[in-house]
Amino acid sequence: MRAAVLGAGAWGTTFAAVMADAGCDVTVWGRDEKVCRQIADEHRNEAYLPGVELPARVTASPDARAVLAGADVVAVAIPSQSARATLAPLADAVAGHAVAVSLMKGVELSTDRRMSEVVAEALGIPADRIAVVSGPNLALEIAHRQPTATVVASTSEATAQLVARACASAYFRPYTNDDVVGVELCGAVKNVIALAVGISQGRGLGYNTMATVITRGLVEITRLGLALGADADTFPGLAGLGDLMATCASPDSRNHTLGGHIGRGMTLDEAISATGGTAEGVKSCRSVLELATTLGVEMPITSAVVRVLHEGLPVDQLAPLLLARPHKAEGA
Amino acid sequence: MRAAVLGAGAWGTTFAAVMADAGCDVTVWGRDEKVCRQIADEHRNEAYLPGVELPARVTASPDARAVLAGADVVAVAIPSQSARATLAPLADAVAGHAVAVSLMKGVELSTDRRMSEVVAEALGIPADRIAVVSGPNLALEIAHRQPTATVVASTSEATAQLVARACASAYFRPYTNDDVVGVELCGAVKNVIALAVGISQGRGLGYNTMATVITRGLVEITRLGLALGADADTFPGLAGLGDLMATCASPDSRNHTLGGHIGRGMTLDEAISATGGTAEGVKSCRSVLELATTLGVEMPITSAVVRVLHEGLPVDQLAPLLLARPHKAEGA
Repeated sequence: MRAAVLGAGAWGTTFAAVMADAGCDVTVWGRDEKVCRQIADEHRNEAYLPGVELPARVTASPDARAVLAGADVVAVAIPSQSARATLAPLADAVAGHAVAVSLMKGVELSTDRRMSEVVAEALGIPADRIAVVSGPNLALEIAHRQPTATVVASTSEATAQLVARACASAYFRPYTNDDVVGVELCGAVKNVIALAVGISQGRGLGYNTMATVITRGLVEITRLGLALGADADTFPGLAGLGDLMATCASPDSRNHTLGGHIGRGMTLDEAISATGGTAEGVKSCRSVLELATTLGVEMPITSAVVRVLHEGLPVDQLAPLLLARPHKAEGA
Repeated sequence: MRAAVLGAGAWGTTFAAVMADAGCDVTVWGRDEKVCRQIADEHRNEAYLPGVELPARVTASPDARAVLAGADVVAVAIPSQSARATLAPLADAVAGHAVAVSLMKGVELSTDRRMSEVVAEALGIPADRIAVVSGPNLALEIAHRQPTATVVASTSEATAQLVARACASAYFRPYTNDDVVGVELCGAVKNVIALAVGISQGRGLGYNTMATVITRGLVEITRLGLALGADADTFPGLAGLGDLMATCASPDSRNHTLGGHIGRGMTLDEAISATGGTAEGVKSCRSVLELATTLGVEMPITSAVVRVLHEGLPVDQLAPLLLARPHKAEGA
């Protein structure tokens, strides 16, 4: 199988290596000629994956149309908010039979579209040839071939199977799933929960609190997902719980790190500056809460994060808020 | 409300403090007179909860019959395998209206009974006055009043509500649940998954692998639970996922620690000695696998742990085994 990856960052390059190890011939497109040359000539991408040797079957080029020509699978890992503008001019370069894979998380802010919808619209590909890959997938660990699993979601079982074959190897195990909405929702909301976990860890709270916030966080993501028509089974799976747990455990997660700074008493501006930039959850927590409010869904953890980050609630009042609902049955 | 706690170890003493903070008058029974005197006179239990100041409403006595007299709630936190022998002679000292709470994990090896069944049989209390408390509840963190949540499970909603009221406070939030079988199964099988996580971390594997093993571990616990008639909603909840996550994250968990030693290349005997004793999952993994085999339930992670610990499989062959099933849909 021939595969193209648009985006030569950490996750794009890693997914290229994964597909190469699964037997595909893979070409990566990146804007930066130097990065492309290093991938093609030296099989390395030191800026994003320091110390990693890429498979020989991975090459790269700064010519996107050449990269797309004849590719059976087109994986997209470029910045979410500029994805539409980058992809639209390339639509006619994609092969008629090609399947596209979104590796991106989040929502297009101007349109509230999920990233797979942005890919489909911008490249002019029907939904049944679109897939999403999401799971406990910290790029650098996978680039070092540490074992993990992931979810390949598509409304078409055939498309999901094709993409699963294109990326399966001894260290990377794809499970198929038809719930694209649920998988993409998990990827967007996990960052808000990671902020809450970071804040409570920054306050010096331990593993019980972390486990409680993640577990109850998963409950509120599930409630929102069900209101949007997602499948209940997606949430305790790899793209839900699995990704959430890896994000909350890794000290490299920006949301987790920024939350930690807030927990230790920084203002939001100070925390953004200490983290070296903002984190996805800081922006998305308000839109998630708005969506939940519109749908009549209770999300106490998301609401507490919004109040601490954006409404001046003192951080020492967060912990009780996370547990402050009246006693009730667990599923409710 | 008057409460008795049988067992003056870390969890028994902590749960006594939790009930006192919820407004109960609590007396702890312990075998060791010195520990009882320290709790009663100094409101401390330095052997098990160093540095913790207990609420003034917690007292203690080595006279079990006096402790039980007039108690409305009797919580039991003594070693699982000797629980029946300890409790049976005390049956007639329990008040006729009392509710009993099992704080114990695991299964009685000689009878395969769950611990709540052991408590009910030994004290002669009907099932509708028995409850189980289980969740992400590392004792020392709770003793320091760090916020967490838990599950109070009983076949009787009234009993669950009564126990929830007896332990609810600003830092300890009980959720009720009627699935006693599921809650107790989670408490028993989590230790096997914690061993697998410990082994993979001992091998130097990162957060993706941890998150994948926990997520897929939860899937196999759920499969076993459904075959035993448990409720599917229990497993992604606080007593399932929550407890599993706290156990796998805490460096103090014996199963996790022992698994780490195995992962770094020790034999089982060396690992037991380095851990300062065996861990629950080492014993229970075989009975869990036997039960699964009898019921026709696939448990690949449990099976891999049994092969590494008890059947001489080299530990470097564990990681691929955890992911080695053929590609399939996620829920399957």
